[in-house]
Amino acid sequence: MGRTQSASFWSKYNSRWTQTGSLVCVGLDTQIPLIPSFLHSSPNPIWEFNRSIIDSTAEYACAYKPNLAFYLADGLRGLEALEKTIDYIPAEIPVILDCKAGDIGNTMAAYVEGFFESLGVDAITFNPLMGSDVAKPILANEQYYGFALALTSNPSAQDYLKQDNLCGKIAFWINSCPNQQIGAVVGATQTADLATMRSLMPQTIFLVPGIGAQGGDLSAVLKHASASVDNPLILINSSRGILYQDNSISFAKAAATEAQRLRDEILSEIRG
Amino acid sequence: MGRTQSASFWSKYNSRWTQTGSLVCVGLDTQIPLIPSFLHSSPNPIWEFNRSIIDSTAEYACAYKPNLAFYLADGLRGLEALEKTIDYIPAEIPVILDCKAGDIGNTMAAYVEGFFESLGVDAITFNPLMGSDVAKPILANEQYYGFALALTSNPSAQDYLKQDNLCGKIAFWINSCPNQQIGAVVGATQTADLATMRSLMPQTIFLVPGIGAQGGDLSAVLKHASASVDNPLILINSSRGILYQDNSISFAKAAATEAQRLRDEILSEIRG
Repeated sequence: MGRTQSASFWSKYNSRWTQTGSLVCVGLDTQIPLIPSFLHSSPNPIWEFNRSIIDSTAEYACAYKPNLAFYLADGLRGLEALEKTIDYIPAEIPVILDCKAGDIGNTMAAYVEGFFESLGVDAITFNPLMGSDVAKPILANEQYYGFALALTSNPSAQDYLKQDNLCGKIAFWINSCPNQQIGAVVGATQTADLATMRSLMPQTIFLVPGIGAQGGDLSAVLKHASASVDNPLILINSSRGILYQDNSISFAKAAATEAQRLRDEILSEIRG
Repeated sequence: MGRTQSASFWSKYNSRWTQTGSLVCVGLDTQIPLIPSFLHSSPNPIWEFNRSIIDSTAEYACAYKPNLAFYLADGLRGLEALEKTIDYIPAEIPVILDCKAGDIGNTMAAYVEGFFESLGVDAITFNPLMGSDVAKPILANEQYYGFALALTSNPSAQDYLKQDNLCGKIAFWINSCPNQQIGAVVGATQTADLATMRSLMPQTIFLVPGIGAQGGDLSAVLKHASASVDNPLILINSSRGILYQDNSISFAKAAATEAQRLRDEILSEIRG
């Protein structure tokens, strides 16, 4: 298994933006109870669903982001679906595995090697709580890329990330890393925070969840993140908002319609 | 798949201590390059290795702790090894999946359901960076148990955990949770910190890595964590120190010897 990694995440991202005008990250949060019921009897429902979604949305996708949780929840069949999904995504579209891995030493090295070398992803998300040691296995190979959790938009982000400027300290560290290897996950529901995070990380790609299902305001997000046509430095993720538009035989077409709509809305906003 | 979960982690832990006198957590960090080479040609080397290790160490184990990273690194075969390993561990010995999961909402719920219901583990480790929302799917079922990362012993624990009392804030939150559902991962190399953490979490089970390979001092650890015969509230993890004592056909026997030695050393220290 493992598709050919022809280029780094950074260069694939930039090429994809230049060539397609898309900043949409299609979140492949595929959950069997949420997909059309006629797929449930398939030998591998998640894979069957994803294949159709990729066929229909690829031209509007800047990147794909499968979330490990939903694949592990389906056991061996789910992991097989993840492998097939990653292999199936066209090589020029970068794949971000959302795993929020956060370990150190030989354990983190095992995650990184498994995800980049065996699965063939272009980037992962990671949790920096244990400090810079977490990123070492990513930084050890210039072809690897990681998005560090910097600020999230859930209510209990108040517990730690927003206390004593923890998110600011994480941002400061991210900014000290090579831009071409470390990006930031920055939640979208509180857009004023986005401006602060951008000021701390002027050249870092932001992966922004929370548009759509979680209620972020796209126009404000792009403005506060200082996204520009010349240097957007942003990926707008939508998962459930794209995947589950329609529960009939037309689900993939409906997903494409929404992916295209979101691509066009972002493009319109960013062009001002 | 999935073994019968006859009792909660909390009650299995207490029964195991009472019945066997063991506080040893055997860390199943099984990596193919480190296991005896004659197992490499087996259809599933990790599973073959683990089965022998479990056969030989079970009587000395208070708990087992497979680390997800090393299973995912071997792809589908690795996940199958993990399933078989968990199924094979006697039901009275609790299994902690070391996954450091740290997500929220339906994503964290998918991890929790997959790990507890499908894999059949008794506890998981989790990363609390995103705040109390992370623990909600664990706390939603009284049978579930999670160890929150509270303080680690790696050098870059200085970056965030040891700044502005972040580890203290996490400890305060853990202490506010039901003791029978939330424990704490507390690193062992700086034992003075252990005493502080214990003062903040007087009734919380500590999962302590870093004995052996990472250089912690067992006697000081037990003292500073206030471990007592009546209420030990601690698990001492050893992974590489037990698994890789011997690279010959006698590897499992050597692992048993070390597990027994560690059990006896802890017992001797805790009895004073």
